[in-house]
Amino acid sequence: MPYVNIKITREGATPAQKAKLIEGVTDLLVRVLDKSPATTFVVIDEVALEDWGIGGLPVEDYRRVMRADRGRVPMK
Amino acid sequence: MPYVNIKITREGATPAQKAKLIEGVTDLLVRVLDKSPATTFVVIDEVALEDWGIGGLPVEDYRRVMRADRGRVPMK
Amino acid sequence: MPYVNIKITREGATPAQKAKLIEGVTDLLVRVLDKSPATTFVVIDEVALEDWGIGGLPVEDYRRVMRADRGRVPMK
Amino acid sequence: MPYVNIKITREGATPAQKAKLIEGVTDLLVRVLDKSPATTFVVIDEVALEDWGIGGLPVEDYRRVMRADRGRVPMK
Amino acid sequence: MPYVNIKITREGATPAQKAKLIEGVTDLLVRVLDKSPATTFVVIDEVALEDWGIGGLPVEDYRRVMRADRGRVPMK
Amino acid sequence: MPYVNIKITREGATPAQKAKLIEGVTDLLVRVLDKSPATTFVVIDEVALEDWGIGGLPVEDYRRVMRADRGRVPMK
Repeated sequence: MPYVNIKITREGATPAQKAKLIEGVTDLLVRVLDKSPATTFVVIDEVALEDWGIGGLPVEDYRRVMRADRGRVPMK
Repeated sequence: MPYVNIKITREGATPAQKAKLIEGVTDLLVRVLDKSPATTFVVIDEVALEDWGIGGLPVEDYRRVMRADRGRVPMK
Repeated sequence: MPYVNIKITREGATPAQKAKLIEGVTDLLVRVLDKSPATTFVVIDEVALEDWGIGGLPVEDYRRVMRADRGRVPMK
Repeated sequence: MPYVNIKITREGATPAQKAKLIEGVTDLLVRVLDKSPATTFVVIDEVALEDWGIGGLPVEDYRRVMRADRGRVPMK
Repeated sequence: MPYVNIKITREGATPAQKAKLIEGVTDLLVRVLDKSPATTFVVIDEVALEDWGIGGLPVEDYRRVMRADRGRVPMK
Repeated sequence: MPYVNIKITREGATPAQKAKLIEGVTDLLVRVLDKSPATTFVVIDEVALEDWGIGGLPVEDYRRVMRADRGRVPMK
């Protein structure tokens, strides 16, 4: 009877994409640990960009720094 | 000093109902474990239906399937 | 289909007390929001005293300060 | 930069199975939402049976009831 | 690779204040445990006042009681 | 009345270091948002290395790959 919480930044994930996450992670628990889908909960939290920090910065600032300083593709 | 997090689907719980949850779970911790209400936190999260999965499906799809296939009362 | 997480300090809660918490919070959700017990999960986390802070101090230090400085009954 | 928390009952999941969960859920987030693996965290919590409740009962009691009363395969 | 979740009541924290929380807690983890900022996530949740309970009451009721009964400065 | 949860890999953080995390994050919330220490909870979770994933791998495998493939200092 697993409980899975998926936190992602709020950047336009559609209901169809969320349904794929729910299906995919439930299938994974069935496949790997033989869990029952009927007692597998998945809760998705979309977090506003200003509420997510990485590298000591809010996500948008972090991506800006990554692009400017290192020419890297910004992480999603 | 307990911390309790209650996650429910967002389906119209009123402030009065939430207050009952807060009171009820705090009383429970006092009664069972002699905890102090003053240091008991309760945080309620209402989760959009598209963000909650069970049985590998978003809640609304799951309820539809339950009703159609098995004639069961849909779970809340 | 609620999910409830109860965090308490690890101070000897017995399996019987935990069963009472599980029963009590499930009943509460049935009574207040008409939720289905079959899809109500409760997860209890016991947290070591050194891992719980309040008032800027680990719990045991906090209780010591409360007792010494204010003559208060230490909080549980 | 997703964060995923997987809670399962503590019933002998092996490091190899956990590695499959980590790999599988990361791949899922890459596939569905084009997330970067390098900033995808997965945290697995194994929860003792006495600390997990469903149907108002600790898991083991719940499984016993399910087997006795309904002849159902106990849920994992 | 720490993950930090900060839950506060929703009472007007600004993006600049949130950025200070993200920076401050990341610096703390670097300073105390020599963690890498690049793999330190901070997620801030603002919780509506009606969804946060303390002392068995929703926050606003609790503050009202504290002010009325004891003349205390309401807690934030 | 903030609640802060800090998750770190289990790699020998001492009680003194944990006390510094508790003090530091509480001070931060006082300084930035004028929160009351008396109603600020901090809960630290130490997570076994096999239970923490990044880059689709358990932490130790990830660090090994980082060292081997890129010559980078492994992330903590």
